[in-house]
Amino acid sequence: MCYNITRMNRIELVRQINLKKSFLCVGLDTDINKIPKHLLDCEDPVFEFNKQIIDATKDYCVSYKINTAFYESRGLDGWKSLIRTWQYLPSECFSIADAKRGDIGNTSEMYAKAFFDQRSSDMSFDSVTIAPYMGTDSVKPFLNFEGKWAILLALTSNEGSKDFQNIKAENGMKLFESVLEKAKEWGSPENVMFVVGATRGEAFLEIRKHVPEHFLLVPGVGAQGGSLDDVCKYGLNSDCGLLVNSSRAIIYASNGVDFADAARQEARKVQEAMAPWIK
Amino acid sequence: MCYNITRMNRIELVRQINLKKSFLCVGLDTDINKIPKHLLDCEDPVFEFNKQIIDATKDYCVSYKINTAFYESRGLDGWKSLIRTWQYLPSECFSIADAKRGDIGNTSEMYAKAFFDQRSSDMSFDSVTIAPYMGTDSVKPFLNFEGKWAILLALTSNEGSKDFQNIKAENGMKLFESVLEKAKEWGSPENVMFVVGATRGEAFLEIRKHVPEHFLLVPGVGAQGGSLDDVCKYGLNSDCGLLVNSSRAIIYASNGVDFADAARQEARKVQEAMAPWIK
Repeated sequence: MCYNITRMNRIELVRQINLKKSFLCVGLDTDINKIPKHLLDCEDPVFEFNKQIIDATKDYCVSYKINTAFYESRGLDGWKSLIRTWQYLPSECFSIADAKRGDIGNTSEMYAKAFFDQRSSDMSFDSVTIAPYMGTDSVKPFLNFEGKWAILLALTSNEGSKDFQNIKAENGMKLFESVLEKAKEWGSPENVMFVVGATRGEAFLEIRKHVPEHFLLVPGVGAQGGSLDDVCKYGLNSDCGLLVNSSRAIIYASNGVDFADAARQEARKVQEAMAPWIK
Repeated sequence: MCYNITRMNRIELVRQINLKKSFLCVGLDTDINKIPKHLLDCEDPVFEFNKQIIDATKDYCVSYKINTAFYESRGLDGWKSLIRTWQYLPSECFSIADAKRGDIGNTSEMYAKAFFDQRSSDMSFDSVTIAPYMGTDSVKPFLNFEGKWAILLALTSNEGSKDFQNIKAENGMKLFESVLEKAKEWGSPENVMFVVGATRGEAFLEIRKHVPEHFLLVPGVGAQGGSLDDVCKYGLNSDCGLLVNSSRAIIYASNGVDFADAARQEARKVQEAMAPWIK
């Protein structure tokens, strides 16, 4: 299986959103201790779980986000499950390596190879999430890969987001606003997205002042308590411009033998709530 | 081979520094395209290179820093080299997974398992580098591992460090100063260090006002142009308090069959320059 590296561009992503009437991203934060017990007899239980989740949800979502931490935590076995899961992702879905990487230029280049260059690492995601603390040269190597996307942390939904992201500078801008403004110069709405947590819908008003056109990846709907309607009301733009992620609420909807069916129903519920917002 | 998880505490680290008259950290940023050609016939060329570099330099350094990006970029093969290299690190050297991780609490917990919990991942480094953008709950899971260290990015030495780290807040503090002040509350000088780049020695005066006792991990001496004497003059504290990293200048001192010998000589040179600074 081989991705055409320039395939999942913005036009194609928007086309998929309109086709499926969905901007749902399913998060594969797959914890081997939380999956149904009957899968533990499989040779690769995490991959088997992901495979069934993907089969069950792919009609209702346009994207999959793989949280790499859950795979790395299991060492070599986990890395194998990660590669197999990437290989199994449907080609019409936008794939995200949620890896929160970022380092000096020559090192970020290596991280970009890890997630984008299939010849080197056996994986080629459409995008990677990036922590912006180290600035321009930590982000640009990802943007040098044609057809690939960098998804920068801007305003996250966790408790600690208040520690630094909201610090107001002398020029009146909060740190996350500086990240938005700087990153606009590094790339374009064709290859840069931002992570914006869903915990406070009105925050999207502020965000959209800075980046009206960019896509936003939105965690925090569902398990973390954010409201889908608020996110849509304040966050949508004319191309939709949102990928709303749900992980635990979908993939752990049941931990019995019916887990895939339960995941399908949860995904469909979210898709149905999204549909009226798609023009 | 099994690490005692509480072994490399601050007392032991300082003892090693005094014993070896060195606070050198050798950075294993091992790029398969840069290692001597004769190693490419080995079953695991990167591990073979690292093994010989470690054997050649271990008398002159107190720490090894493995830049995970260089291993991840090679997929499963790279992850194998990473685990084998960790297993080969001398137990008297402080081991650093230079991975720049950090995410919401339950995800950071998984990253901590990846680098600290040998039962889960086959690796148990003494420390991991962390990007602080997501704040408290992105850091604390690492500190929950007894005997392990979190090394937070504060002021890095790359071009992009200016983009955000030096932004001055309304309260007069620069972002990297806020990171230092906040992180002092999360841990102690017994389990928290900071990354401070060597490009401007006087910056250490500012840093030491905030964290007089903490150890600092200092990249940027050597290939990136920082001066060891300036770093020592402004950065040392009564426990030494510095780990100065050198990667390329040591490991790529020669790319011939004499590479290990050349690395040994480079490491010894740095150690000899450090010795007069150790009381």
